[in-house]
Amino acid sequence: MPLKMTHDEVAALLDREFPQVSAHFTIEELEEMRIRVRLNVGEAHLRPGGTVSGPSIFALADVAVYMAVLGMIGPKSLAVTTNCSIDFMRKPAAETDLIADCRLLKLGRALAVGDVLIFSEGVGTPVARASLTYSIPP
Amino acid sequence: MPLKMTHDEVAALLDREFPQVSAHFTIEELEEMRIRVRLNVGEAHLRPGGTVSGPSIFALADVAVYMAVLGMIGPKSLAVTTNCSIDFMRKPAAETDLIADCRLLKLGRALAVGDVLIFSEGVGTPVARASLTYSIPP
Amino acid sequence: MPLKMTHDEVAALLDREFPQVSAHFTIEELEEMRIRVRLNVGEAHLRPGGTVSGPSIFALADVAVYMAVLGMIGPKSLAVTTNCSIDFMRKPAAETDLIADCRLLKLGRALAVGDVLIFSEGVGTPVARASLTYSIPP
Amino acid sequence: MPLKMTHDEVAALLDREFPQVSAHFTIEELEEMRIRVRLNVGEAHLRPGGTVSGPSIFALADVAVYMAVLGMIGPKSLAVTTNCSIDFMRKPAAETDLIADCRLLKLGRALAVGDVLIFSEGVGTPVARASLTYSIPP
Repeated sequence: MPLKMTHDEVAALLDREFPQVSAHFTIEELEEMRIRVRLNVGEAHLRPGGTVSGPSIFALADVAVYMAVLGMIGPKSLAVTTNCSIDFMRKPAAETDLIADCRLLKLGRALAVGDVLIFSEGVGTPVARASLTYSIPP
Repeated sequence: MPLKMTHDEVAALLDREFPQVSAHFTIEELEEMRIRVRLNVGEAHLRPGGTVSGPSIFALADVAVYMAVLGMIGPKSLAVTTNCSIDFMRKPAAETDLIADCRLLKLGRALAVGDVLIFSEGVGTPVARASLTYSIPP
Repeated sequence: MPLKMTHDEVAALLDREFPQVSAHFTIEELEEMRIRVRLNVGEAHLRPGGTVSGPSIFALADVAVYMAVLGMIGPKSLAVTTNCSIDFMRKPAAETDLIADCRLLKLGRALAVGDVLIFSEGVGTPVARASLTYSIPP
Repeated sequence: MPLKMTHDEVAALLDREFPQVSAHFTIEELEEMRIRVRLNVGEAHLRPGGTVSGPSIFALADVAVYMAVLGMIGPKSLAVTTNCSIDFMRKPAAETDLIADCRLLKLGRALAVGDVLIFSEGVGTPVARASLTYSIPP
């Protein structure tokens, strides 16, 4: 199944739908059923000690699956997260961008499931693992 | 098992440890193994249409369990989230504060588990449900 | 919203649909959006030391939500589990029945979410906590 | 970090610790931080229509992470599951063995996290995805 949107179209959709946060994220790579997204870490994401906050990691996983799904199904911006399970495994490196490596494991008519590994840029062991379910309106 | 910290001590700890976000949250009620926390919804939490964002809901669940745990074990600010599972069940009411109703189901030496229901203020059916595990350093 | 099936009708449906396992479970109480189910612990559920196995606890949570959903929507036996998150918090008491206390937090047209606490009979602190999502076919 | 147990030692440990169920599972491959395990599907695992039951899929994911962890840390049979999140994505093929492909994402002193994809043998798209946390006693 081919992509229905290009890298630039997905990025433009994010700008349009989520203008408050779209500048925080950069699509590094978009492929069929896969995406790699960068969290451009800034003051808003940090906790004392320079570590990236849990909600920022959650937001990165969430937006990665959202963009992977829309890339495949086209601009149905009403897709909504129904479930997320996330394991925080290691402390992120201080003041370092995070990279989310996401693949879609299922893309059904009503539900999509994505799997995400999150790394501090340049570090080989993951900071977090998340899986998310999106509900796709008819 | 009695509380080790008062309502005001937990609030002060949050101010000290998480100054970037503590103003977003208000402890409504602190009891043994339970807490009720308000998300003071502002611009930063909203998505187009006035709905509260997923990461803001996650942050509320996370901070509620954190404060419930610290209230019981005292100011060990190194307690860290290791796992969260969250179900987003209904769209939050527009521009309305969220209330997290949290109880601790387990408070062991190494791990604590909290369960959270999240409501738009004044609405009887929950917006979200979350469970979180915290690891407590020795 | 009232129940669409009685206690006996739900029990009969389980016998019919899942004859291999229905004898393991007893509905203790069925109400609107709630159910209490007993796992009649036998050899098949035990691990060395007399403790109840993880898969048996999972099965109890799963069947409890299934029956709570069917009680509310009627005998659509095609409802399927799409997600489960479960926390194992304490070792079950040896050779003791388990009781699942389940409430439905959401019963939408396409998705239902149930929350389950599981206790060893007669013990006040829960053995496990689970939340499950069921997909309901149109 | 090298394996502390061989394929045969892990299989023997499973026989010894879980004699009721060890015949259901076959280790296909054991490597550092990875394992592939087969569920030898039999009557006990089936539901009407020949599909493999949810609790059997859970059991496979659970035992795969257990054996992957013990292979790395040696025979500490007290390691216990504290959390599992599982997505059921497709119906298993009728009367077909399941294969669990598991990798450990974290192996800390106190907690291990494993990620599992489960396939019907010979089918390329996964039946289920699970992540599990094990607590390792000191």
